[in-house]
Amino acid sequence: MKKIINDPADVVAEALTGMALAHADLIEVHRDPDFITRRGGPVQGKVAVVSGGGSGHEPLHGGFVGHGMLSAACPGAIFTSPTPDQIEAATRAVHGGAGVLHLVKNYTGDVLNFETGAELAMADGIEVTSVLIDDDVAVKDSVYTAGRRGVGGTVLVEKIAGAAAERGDDLAGVAAIAERVTATVRSMGMALTSCTVPHAGKPTFDLGEDEMEIGIGIHGEPGRETVPVERANGIVERLLTPVLYDLPFASGDRVLLFVNGMGGTPLIELYLAYAHAAEVLEDRRISVERRLVGNYITSLEMQGMSITLLRLDDELIELWDAPVQTPALRWGR
Amino acid sequence: MKKIINDPADVVAEALTGMALAHADLIEVHRDPDFITRRGGPVQGKVAVVSGGGSGHEPLHGGFVGHGMLSAACPGAIFTSPTPDQIEAATRAVHGGAGVLHLVKNYTGDVLNFETGAELAMADGIEVTSVLIDDDVAVKDSVYTAGRRGVGGTVLVEKIAGAAAERGDDLAGVAAIAERVTATVRSMGMALTSCTVPHAGKPTFDLGEDEMEIGIGIHGEPGRETVPVERANGIVERLLTPVLYDLPFASGDRVLLFVNGMGGTPLIELYLAYAHAAEVLEDRRISVERRLVGNYITSLEMQGMSITLLRLDDELIELWDAPVQTPALRWGR
Repeated sequence: MKKIINDPADVVAEALTGMALAHADLIEVHRDPDFITRRGGPVQGKVAVVSGGGSGHEPLHGGFVGHGMLSAACPGAIFTSPTPDQIEAATRAVHGGAGVLHLVKNYTGDVLNFETGAELAMADGIEVTSVLIDDDVAVKDSVYTAGRRGVGGTVLVEKIAGAAAERGDDLAGVAAIAERVTATVRSMGMALTSCTVPHAGKPTFDLGEDEMEIGIGIHGEPGRETVPVERANGIVERLLTPVLYDLPFASGDRVLLFVNGMGGTPLIELYLAYAHAAEVLEDRRISVERRLVGNYITSLEMQGMSITLLRLDDELIELWDAPVQTPALRWGR
Repeated sequence: MKKIINDPADVVAEALTGMALAHADLIEVHRDPDFITRRGGPVQGKVAVVSGGGSGHEPLHGGFVGHGMLSAACPGAIFTSPTPDQIEAATRAVHGGAGVLHLVKNYTGDVLNFETGAELAMADGIEVTSVLIDDDVAVKDSVYTAGRRGVGGTVLVEKIAGAAAERGDDLAGVAAIAERVTATVRSMGMALTSCTVPHAGKPTFDLGEDEMEIGIGIHGEPGRETVPVERANGIVERLLTPVLYDLPFASGDRVLLFVNGMGGTPLIELYLAYAHAAEVLEDRRISVERRLVGNYITSLEMQGMSITLLRLDDELIELWDAPVQTPALRWGR
């Protein structure tokens, strides 16, 4: 195992220390229980948006805390759900009197722990609504999941729901926006290599020298099939076609196209893949109106990528374009 | 070789197509010869800042084109210098009547080709000044280089010189700022794994399962030594100590600390390394006033990192903080 780490048991804590030092202008890192909040404390009268999940997917979720996106994020151990006490503490810390929206990726542990965390917060008198993210079209059920997994769409839900909260929507309104994104976002991913969880010390799964895994999960869970490595255009089509057919996306649709790296894939390959994905969509007369290219929801050092499509309307575009100031996404004032 | 590419010969061209489609709001991509300019054409009366070099280091340089940073970037083939005609064409395209500054990483091919490109542009009546970037303390001479190599410091020179041009400094003034940054920035890098140049098809160098290369160049050139992999804190100290002793940086200094990933290293490891680097500097009473953490100057899918320190003063801080709107760095309005 080759990693820039000290003791495998300390990876998350030490990385949180680094995040706190590197981004003190945007976020605050709380310890025991661990959570990250937007700098400056709760915003009175604004709906707070909280997410979280296992670590190892950076910048998700902690890198998306800040103005216009998440109010708080709860990082679990690597590929392990955050605990209910983390979720409760984060929810209490950011509650500004207008309720709290939990954005939960659909993994059994996350669902259960967010449910308990929400119950604890509600027992304290805080109104909590949860939205489940399950955008992965690759498999119906999987390791850790009943139903579809939450993957790349999560980044888009967090940005757009955060913008709705920032413009002053009430809790039901922010939840409705998050549901609308979840209903019209679809993703699929692939891996060229496995990743290695630090405390496991060996690769999560085996792939031959000439093989790739299509439909991979973000924890290295099995996808649809292991096949020989192909050229980029073939890989793009293997991901994009099931995504297109699932919703389905149709001629005339306006979309956001998100090409995401799994952590170990260089940007030059992501741009190359983006070019072909955009070409396929143009051929189908689907209009790419917004886009995101980079490593935003990763699986440690895994090489691979995912493609996410979100159907847009004027309101979703306005919310996507709204200013955001977080460690990993920044634009506008 | 596992990569998301089509024909190795088309990697740069196809990635440029992707960049053009993904960032049409910020940049324009020109072909034959290839160069990237800030959207909107030359800014009359403003000094233009042009850089470039081999591809494979993304987001450097094309990802730094835009308001407040580069006016143009010239991407060569992978790990290969751009040609004089690319440099001349980019220089002509962005010249706004106030001269053009070339920022050149110190590699023999880059130096020669930028020199010829500058001569061609000057024959057209464009005033050109060049600043050489050679911040790598690891080795004195190297493959492709007489003298020190230009590495992580390049990102900081490009940001700060771009801000000086944006505030209206004249050519001599922008060049002087770039020279000041170059004089007080120092870097060193390391690799856990090699990278594979697409048309070579096999790793650039060999590293054993338990080995790392200290002082690596951004093309996989040899560094100071191959040693057994250590814990992160040891790795950080192996990079930071030579950097500190070289300038030297001293108690009371104010610095920008830049922890850069080589392309295949996940963000969680970079934050962890950042935490220890910040601790070492605090122990030495060196004040970290600005920072940057992420994959900004890479070597394809190489796993590893570099650490860069820049000594700051009030003016450099003001220029660092100035608004920037590029594909890879964005802040302010």
